[in-house]
This record gives sequence, C-alpha cells and structure tokens, in this order.
Amino acid sequence: MAASRSFPLDAWYAVAWDAELRHELFARTVCNKKLVLYRTAGGDPVALEDACWHRLVPLSKGRLRGDEVVCGYHGLAYNPQGRCTFMPSQETINPAACVRSFPVAERHRFIWVWPGDPALADPARIPDLHWNRDPAWAGDGKTFHLHCDYRLIVDNLMDLTHETFVHGSSIGNRAVAEAPFDVTHGDRTATVTRWMRDIDPPPFWAAQLGKPGKVDRWQIIRFEAPCTIAIDVGVAPAGSGAPQGDRSHGVNGFVLNSITPETDGTCHYFWAFVRNYRLDDQRLTTELREGVSRIFGEDVIVLEAQQKAIEEHPDHVFYNLNIDAGAMWARRIIDRMVAAETATPGLQAAE
Amino acid sequence: MAASRSFPLDAWYAVAWDAELRHELFARTVCNKKLVLYRTAGGDPVALEDACWHRLVPLSKGRLRGDEVVCGYHGLAYNPQGRCTFMPSQETINPAACVRSFPVAERHRFIWVWPGDPALADPARIPDLHWNRDPAWAGDGKTFHLHCDYRLIVDNLMDLTHETFVHGSSIGNRAVAEAPFDVTHGDRTATVTRWMRDIDPPPFWAAQLGKPGKVDRWQIIRFEAPCTIAIDVGVAPAGSGAPQGDRSHGVNGFVLNSITPETDGTCHYFWAFVRNYRLDDQRLTTELREGVSRIFGEDVIVLEAQQKAIEEHPDHVFYNLNIDAGAMWARRIIDRMVAAETATPGLQAAE
Amino acid sequence: MAASRSFPLDAWYAVAWDAELRHELFARTVCNKKLVLYRTAGGDPVALEDACWHRLVPLSKGRLRGDEVVCGYHGLAYNPQGRCTFMPSQETINPAACVRSFPVAERHRFIWVWPGDPALADPARIPDLHWNRDPAWAGDGKTFHLHCDYRLIVDNLMDLTHETFVHGSSIGNRAVAEAPFDVTHGDRTATVTRWMRDIDPPPFWAAQLGKPGKVDRWQIIRFEAPCTIAIDVGVAPAGSGAPQGDRSHGVNGFVLNSITPETDGTCHYFWAFVRNYRLDDQRLTTELREGVSRIFGEDVIVLEAQQKAIEEHPDHVFYNLNIDAGAMWARRIIDRMVAAETATPGLQAAE
Repeated sequence: MAASRSFPLDAWYAVAWDAELRHELFARTVCNKKLVLYRTAGGDPVALEDACWHRLVPLSKGRLRGDEVVCGYHGLAYNPQGRCTFMPSQETINPAACVRSFPVAERHRFIWVWPGDPALADPARIPDLHWNRDPAWAGDGKTFHLHCDYRLIVDNLMDLTHETFVHGSSIGNRAVAEAPFDVTHGDRTATVTRWMRDIDPPPFWAAQLGKPGKVDRWQIIRFEAPCTIAIDVGVAPAGSGAPQGDRSHGVNGFVLNSITPETDGTCHYFWAFVRNYRLDDQRLTTELREGVSRIFGEDVIVLEAQQKAIEEHPDHVFYNLNIDAGAMWARRIIDRMVAAETATPGLQAAE
Repeated sequence: MAASRSFPLDAWYAVAWDAELRHELFARTVCNKKLVLYRTAGGDPVALEDACWHRLVPLSKGRLRGDEVVCGYHGLAYNPQGRCTFMPSQETINPAACVRSFPVAERHRFIWVWPGDPALADPARIPDLHWNRDPAWAGDGKTFHLHCDYRLIVDNLMDLTHETFVHGSSIGNRAVAEAPFDVTHGDRTATVTRWMRDIDPPPFWAAQLGKPGKVDRWQIIRFEAPCTIAIDVGVAPAGSGAPQGDRSHGVNGFVLNSITPETDGTCHYFWAFVRNYRLDDQRLTTELREGVSRIFGEDVIVLEAQQKAIEEHPDHVFYNLNIDAGAMWARRIIDRMVAAETATPGLQAAE
Repeated sequence: MAASRSFPLDAWYAVAWDAELRHELFARTVCNKKLVLYRTAGGDPVALEDACWHRLVPLSKGRLRGDEVVCGYHGLAYNPQGRCTFMPSQETINPAACVRSFPVAERHRFIWVWPGDPALADPARIPDLHWNRDPAWAGDGKTFHLHCDYRLIVDNLMDLTHETFVHGSSIGNRAVAEAPFDVTHGDRTATVTRWMRDIDPPPFWAAQLGKPGKVDRWQIIRFEAPCTIAIDVGVAPAGSGAPQGDRSHGVNGFVLNSITPETDGTCHYFWAFVRNYRLDDQRLTTELREGVSRIFGEDVIVLEAQQKAIEEHPDHVFYNLNIDAGAMWARRIIDRMVAAETATPGLQAAE
C-alpha cells in the first residue's frame, strides 16, 4: 500500500533543545501542526495547539499568566491541559472550549512531542540518544532549519560516501567511497557499518587523534525510526585492535541527529557531536560544534537543491545505487509505519 | 443560501481620501477590480478599469492628456466615460473600444466607487460619515493596507472588549471587558452600545478630559453595511448626566472607519478620529492621529495572524462568544446582501 | 488545432552569448528545460540536462573534471554526451545511467540549443543574425531577463509605433505612428517595412547622421521563426535616394534580437546593435550599447505589466489594431509550428 504521508504521526519527534524551552511562549511547527510550547513555572514542558478556540489567533502571540496561556486578542485563557479557563464578558465557559494538548517529554537534552494518538504515546519509544547527556561523553549541538523533506537528510546520513565529494577538505577522502560496508536492519532500526582499515586519516580525524601514521576508521550509522540517527565514528592507530573491539588507543565520537518534519517540504534538524576524550576541554567542544556545523553547511546547498528538483519532477522514479542500501531500509521502515497508520480500520482488523 | 463572495458589489466603497486624488493617474484595486483613478482638470473624480482594451496594459502606467488617459504602450486614449478616442495609425476607431467606467462620488472627505450595477448606484446610499467634514468636529486620519479579509476589521471594531487585551496600555482596561452592552440592528445597520459608569478612565481618556476622578464612559458602535463603522466614544465626569443625554461636561470623539476589500484577503482601511473639543488645536489633531494610529498598529499584528490562520483552516467553523453579537449581526447583513446579488434571476423573480 | 504550448521545441534557440560560455559550469533554463552548459577544454559547447540521474541534484552545482561533469553530491561523472562514467562504491555502471544531451551550435556570436527531437536539429535552420560577426558591421549587445512570455517581446518589436509613446524622448516621434507600412510573409518569416520620408529625424538618429535637415528614415523588421528578429534601421538625407536603394549618404544599423523562452512566463532576451559606420569607434559602440539598452528598459516596464495583466485575465480575447499585422503573422507562424509538433501521430500520418 503506497504511503500518502511522508511521516508517521504516532512517533516521538524532537521539537526543541532543552535550553530552547523556557517559561515563555515558543512557536514551532511539527508534522504540519502548529504548536505553542512553554515550560510551567515548575519546569514541565507543555505543548498546545497554537490556535485559539475562538478565532484561531495564534496563542504564541499572546502571553503566559502563571502556567496559563492568555490569547492576545480577546483574552481567552487556557491551562496546560488546553482547557479554557476564562472568556471575556461572560461567566459561563463553554465546556467544549479547548485547544489540543500534545504528549510531551524531556529526554537526552531534547523536548519530544507525540503528534499522533495520545493513547499510544509510550515514553519507552523515545529514540535512544543517551550519549547526549551521559557524563562519559562531552559535546554540544545546534538546530538547523532546512527547506527539504526530512527524509533527504536521513538519506544523506545513511550513506556517508558523499563525504568524499561534498566534504573533501575535512572529513571526506577516497577511502570512504571505496570501502565496503554492511547493512543490517530490525523492525524499527537499520544499521550501516563501514570499516576503513589501514588508511591515511582525513584532516579532521588526524587532528583529533594527535598521533602520526595510518589508522583504522569506523562509521557505524544507526537509524531509529522515524528520523533519529546516531553515528558512531572514530579512528584508532592501524592494527591497534579497534575492529576487534579494543578502541582504547583511538578517539571516538557520536554524531547525534534527529530530523523532525516541520511541513512536507521543510524540517528541523537537531544535531550534536559528542566525544569520549578531552571531556573538559570547552574550547574543543566549541571548535567541534562550529567545525562540524560548517561541514553540514556544505550539505544544505545540495539538499535544498535536491528538494527543489524533486518538487519540479513530482513523478520522477529514482534509481538506487549500491550506496543507497541503508537509506532504502530507512525509507522502507518509514513507509511501513505510515501505511499502518493510514490503513483502513477494516483492513487492519483483517490482518 | 450560502454566500460565496465575501463582499457585495452593489455598494459604495471608500477608495481614497479626498487629498489622495489629484489630476494625475492613481491605481487602486477595490473588490478585486483594478481601477485607475484621477480628477479631471475641473476636479471631478473619475474611475476607470485599469487595463487598456487593446493589450491589457494598465492605463495607470500611461499619462493624462487633458482629461483623457493615454495608454503608455501604443497611445490609445480614453475619455472620462471610458470611450476610446484615439488609435495609432488608423483613422477609424472601433466603437467597441471602451474600458469600463465606474460610478464615483466624493463625500465626507472620501472618494466612493460603486463596483456593481451602475443603474443601482444611488448616492443616497453612501454611508454616513458626516462628522468627517462637519465644522463642529475637528480631526484627521490615515489609510492603512492590511493583509486580511475586510470583515476581520469589522469584527474587531464591533467588539471593543479586545481593547482590554490588545490595548491595555492606552484605551483598554478591565471595565471594557466587564461592562454589559446592548445590540440592536436595522436592515443595513447594527449598533452596539456600552456604558461604563463610575469607572477609572484609562490613560488616553483621562488626558483628554483633563479633570480628576471617576467617569462615565460610552462606546456606541454603529455599523452601516457593508463596511463602514462610526464609533461614538467619550467620557464625562461620573454622574454629570451623560448616560441621560447631557454630555456637556465631557469630551466626545468619533472614530470613523471604512474598510474596503481590495481582494478576498486584503483590504484598505480608511480611518479618522474627530473630536468636538479644542477644535483649533492642530497639535492635538496630530497627536491624536498618530497616537490612535499607533494603537491600531497593535491590532494589525493580531488581524494578519488571524487571516493567516483562517487561510490555513479553510473549513474551520467558528464559535461565537457573547461579545461577538455585534459582529454577528454585521456579518449576517453582509451575507444577506451578497446572497441577494448572487441569487439566480429565476429565484429572485419568484420572491 | 489550438496550440497548447507557447513555443515549438524543434527549433534553435539562442541560450548564451559566446563570451558567456567558458570552461566552467553554467546553468540556464530554456523552454522549461534546465540545462547545464560548458565548453570543453577544446572550446566546444556542451549542453546537458541539469539533473543527476541518481538524485536529480543539479549538475551545475558540481564541478568539471577535464571535459566531464562531476555531480557535487555522490560524485557520479558524465561525459559530454551525457553518459555516466563513474559511480561511487561500485564497479559496474548501469548502462541506463545517462542525462539528456542537447544539440548545440555556435554561430553569429551566440550559442544555440535545440530542445526538441535531435534527429531534426539541422544547423542550416539557425536563424540569420550574421551581421553580429560580419567585419562590415561593428557593435555589441547584452542579455536581459524578463518576466514575460517571449511572444510579448516579439509583438513589441514587430510594431514600432510604440516608439512614439514609450520612447518619445529618443527614437520615437509622431512620424513612426503615422507612417504607413507594408507586411509580407513567408513560411518561416514575416517582414514589416516602414519608410518615413522627408521627416525631422528623432534625436538619436540626428546625432548618428551628423548632418542637418530632413531625412528619409526606414525600419525593416524581419521576423524568423520562432523568435529571432533583425531590424534594419537608418536614416539618409531626404531625397538622397535611400528608398530607391542608395543608402550611401546615410547611416545604417541593425537591431539584432533573439528572445528565448525560459519558462512559459519568463524569457531571455539576447540583443545587439550593430552599425556600418565609424566601425573602429569603441566609445560609440559603448554609447550605443548602453543607450539602446536604456531605451529597452522603458519597454520592460510595459511588457512585465502586460504579462501580469494577461495572467490575471487568462481567458481574455485580444483585439487587434492595424499596427498588429506584423505581430499577428509572427504569432500565426509560431502557432503553426507548435500545432504541427503537438498533432497526434495518427493525424500527422493522415495529412
């Protein structure tokens, strides 16, 4: 069954960094839904539909009064559950006067929202990005906004051969495009593993390792549906045992990515780089954050050009190369989730 | 019968301030119709369709020659009645070569155009804004252009409880949202009357009255279809007899509004504030014009956000509060006018 | 049979000035087709579809490696014939991996592309603009980009009476609008000839001639389908024999125009002015190029306003004046070419 939507709704989506959300109104669109977000005075995150029940004026243009949102037009007030608690010039409040409230959770330094059926919003299904607040790892990240389908970023991250062509001056080199790789998958995950043994390290990794000579380099890309990707990357001196499991002589990082659809053709990209070495070096944290985000700027040009071309050729059938195996699995898992959501109830019962 | 258009065509619409129109070409779109406007050498206003009969080039990009409009491309000329009087390189002029001419009138310091059936254009139906050039009143106004359905401004003006929430620092206070009000209506009019007795005056009115103490404040909002609203506003010392008809101890102003659809989603808002006190004080005229127009700037943000939200939810059914009673009557009268215009001739004959 | 497209595809279109094309990637859209253009190291022009076979990323965002284009995303390479010669991480190249290559030619200082059936791309059908690199003529030109259907510029050039109204201060005067003219046509051409005898020269031509007194002035406009127009213009002292064929006492120029559809509503306008006098005067070449291009700027305003009006009135039926005879022939020839291309094969066989 062909998927008509490009994303499932019954899933947790990162909508903000923890530090982005404060005790003030914050507007963000996720999966085509406009949300107003804030923290209560006690610090709990709240996510409401950003449209007043009365005249659809965005609540985010109003103000907070205690833990309630007050509409900036006629003063209707809503509590964190979305129930209207005040209407001007009348004493009785229509009990139907509500705005939708969304399940929300805070984990791994991100705020997550569940845009689908609240009854299914199990926090155990929040994707694993634990490295982002694990004391054994240090680092930081950013939020990008892109004019492209979120899946183009998934494609991009599931195949790192593009590093050779897009990022030749930093992390890419011929070895990435030439090394063989392995793809495995589960019900909700797909993993691409690539080991490049006994190679010259690219400039970025040579600097991180700080030792001369050839290296064994790894890229283990783990997709967790619908749009979170943790990439285990690093190098160790060639022959020091990393492929066999001893990474103690090398340096290891994780590129943590969660790409949330904003609309069908735009997305929010939450990204971080954490490392397991020189944990207290804040200068290095800053350099890595800015350096890796500059590298990502090279992708933005390609991804937004690709989106534009796709919109101009809506019926184009794409051809896949060997390198697309990981992305194809990610797409297949996403499509399956969407198809299950959009199947007619009768058909679901028959299965 | 559901109205498919948002405005009637058989009505007078303000299209410009008197001073905006001179002996030069002036383009303005009204009710989705592009007009070229000018005054003849004798000062009479002219309104023609802004598209040359030959190639549709806007006549407003041409020039005036005497009282005729000359197209800037091939030189076709049109008289104030819209008849072509010159064609290049030919002596015979096609008698069908005309652009549409619209009924036009000047009254209450505005230029009014009738975009519908010219046979019905009775000047007696021009809405009453006589205070705008009555020697007993002094003041001035402005033209705003908004990206919203003109009816959102009608809604806004028919319910002034929003002053409490949008204009809390100037004219709004809790009393406006709490005072009871009365709604009456006629065939073409709807009136909302609100008296706030023995209240603290908001900063704006305290300054106008120039006397200490509590006041009786009034807001009498009179809508005249399709889109003109005169608001009788003022304060008098509490208990000095204003509610009973003696306003002589108080100060009185009129907020004069005519909101003309430009397109379905944009409008021209002609607005003035006139007063019956300190008539010769030009500084006060300027201060009031700029001050009230700053207040209106606060509404623009809300109204354009509301328009955007409505466009994103084209099928949304709106809920009404008690405060919407005046706006509901205005909408009902507008809908009725549109329905009458768009009814099939057969049905009309049957009535 | 009504033409549904506004331009034929089986035709040569100017896509760039010779100097615009170098050994580097250059993107231009022609007839709704996105092209990447470049010269090989040997100088030959190449025109390929600007979308990688793999993910549609524009090849123009990649780079040249020798005479091959390398996609900036995954490194797929294409030779000048559009065949893929490299894919990352795989040794076998899918033989279907091609981008479309377009027939291309260089002539009359322009690069020409044939967007239609390559089998029909006969260089003999390149429109005649030979004056543009004939040693007997000197001059230069420019490229304009306009937001209008290319045919509006054809209309504009096929009737120069508009000079009187649009360019009154330079080349236009009453004589142009009043002089009779003659229209002839062939299968692929239409010619408008206008002689204005014994008239005062307009400022531009008075300066070129450099002699006092009345002149005989000519404008011989030759359209060659689908969109090239060479205009033979000049003046000679009145009575010196120019109308009879002796132009030796006068000055002669050619306005060379080729207007290439970019999309249905936009176009590239390649334009030059060459003269047969003061050939070595580079200052004059510069003055003429800048002066005539300023004159054309006056047309741009009218043409883009006309385009906008046409889009707003998609069903408008246009009326023609006598002056439109030349444009009508040009349009008829274009429509016939499009109709022939879009006729159903069955119908074509029946003819």
